[in-house]
Amino acid sequence: MTLQYLSQQIYQKKSYLCVGLDTDPVKIPKHLQAFPDGVFEFNKQIIDATKDLCVAYKINSAFYEAMGAKGWDIMQRTNAYIPSTHFKIADAKRGDIGNTSDQYAKAFFEVLNFDAVTVAPYMGKDSITPFLQYPGKWAIVLGLTSNKGSDDFQQIKVGNHYLYEEVIEKVAGWGTKENVMFVVGATKASDISDIRKIVPEHFLLVPGVGFQGGSLAEVSIAGINSEVGLLVNVSRAIIYAGATENFAAEARTIAQQYQQEMVRYIKD
Amino acid sequence: MTLQYLSQQIYQKKSYLCVGLDTDPVKIPKHLQAFPDGVFEFNKQIIDATKDLCVAYKINSAFYEAMGAKGWDIMQRTNAYIPSTHFKIADAKRGDIGNTSDQYAKAFFEVLNFDAVTVAPYMGKDSITPFLQYPGKWAIVLGLTSNKGSDDFQQIKVGNHYLYEEVIEKVAGWGTKENVMFVVGATKASDISDIRKIVPEHFLLVPGVGFQGGSLAEVSIAGINSEVGLLVNVSRAIIYAGATENFAAEARTIAQQYQQEMVRYIKD
Repeated sequence: MTLQYLSQQIYQKKSYLCVGLDTDPVKIPKHLQAFPDGVFEFNKQIIDATKDLCVAYKINSAFYEAMGAKGWDIMQRTNAYIPSTHFKIADAKRGDIGNTSDQYAKAFFEVLNFDAVTVAPYMGKDSITPFLQYPGKWAIVLGLTSNKGSDDFQQIKVGNHYLYEEVIEKVAGWGTKENVMFVVGATKASDISDIRKIVPEHFLLVPGVGFQGGSLAEVSIAGINSEVGLLVNVSRAIIYAGATENFAAEARTIAQQYQQEMVRYIKD
Repeated sequence: MTLQYLSQQIYQKKSYLCVGLDTDPVKIPKHLQAFPDGVFEFNKQIIDATKDLCVAYKINSAFYEAMGAKGWDIMQRTNAYIPSTHFKIADAKRGDIGNTSDQYAKAFFEVLNFDAVTVAPYMGKDSITPFLQYPGKWAIVLGLTSNKGSDDFQQIKVGNHYLYEEVIEKVAGWGTKENVMFVVGATKASDISDIRKIVPEHFLLVPGVGFQGGSLAEVSIAGINSEVGLLVNVSRAIIYAGATENFAAEARTIAQQYQQEMVRYIKD
């Protein structure tokens, strides 16, 4: 998916919401746990209930891998079920030496047909560039994450700035705003303005709103650029909004609250 | 697997060789490409031909993921085929926020039954500790990798040392020598002595010997400690040693050359 198309979708839907499908088989409603294909059924209903309110879905590969080969199959079918109008993110945090990153790019872009994969930067340029060789596909590189451990290395001082700033600056130079995005956690909304000085035009994928406590208002005010340039991900607060047979409608209600708040921040 | 058992196996076999199963379906011998289950058959024959010469196998998850759900199944069956006397490494470079790393740990330790997973450190402590909660299981954390891109971030100066030294020092404090190892690339053998000053007792997983050009002699002289403390991984130079029906015997010949050289470096 091109940046232009994604940006158009955002303006059209007045939404930069990404729904995170971190689907845990023990957390889905009881009546679905009895299904042989309960996780897929859950995802399907969540997608049906939210697709007009969001522009992207993010599938967290860990939850599917924890189901073994069957989970990989569910991930593939879930991704195929997402409409092609939506930006499909594999939140997989991959990254390895060049010949191995080639294989990951093949797995997520060719076999599974995602639009984007999240990538860890520690191994440097040749671990990231294999993800930049596919027209219309994206690497979403970890910048500043939303977890407590982001203090440990990302916020170490390197010269006169932080490691995460060094990462964002360097990685931005390896691609373009058409194939690189950055993960920037919402729990650090105050840092988003600083990051916007380094990459004013790149899209940022922002996790940490909802269950992890980040503020949509702060993130949006600090992060929105002329193409919006933000995808705000909410996972647990939406998909586990309800625990009964009515779960999809309850998920929709929460997704709608986020989308309606977003209307306020999108400039025409 | 405990450190004590692994160390015993090394002394008994006079080998700290790890064979890397980076099995690419288009690189296996032609006669196996016709098999419906050619990759598994290839792995099986490589394991049969090398198991008395090595103490560990490392499965590179990227190559299996590039085959989709079927690949995940082959990874599982390959791992199950490796004798329980061998240390089984998932080279998967995972790492995410705590609740997600929990799922990766479940995937690789419970579902797939690996002894160890390689983990990327960028997201910090809560991304790594979920891998340290399983008795006898290991996180092998990226320290200094063998690829060119290791210059980009790992070798940035942080205070009076390098980022990879900061990572190794800090991560070592989050676990023990009984559940944490480090990846240290053989292409930087001169750095191994410095790393030994930080973690004299931890096991190091050393890729980069063979196809990537690292020297077994240099790595061994700099890295061996009183429990040996090294696993030297060779992937392509062994598994693709031959391209005919005789490939397993040719792989064995190369594995044997490494093992016989290792005899010289293991102190009694």
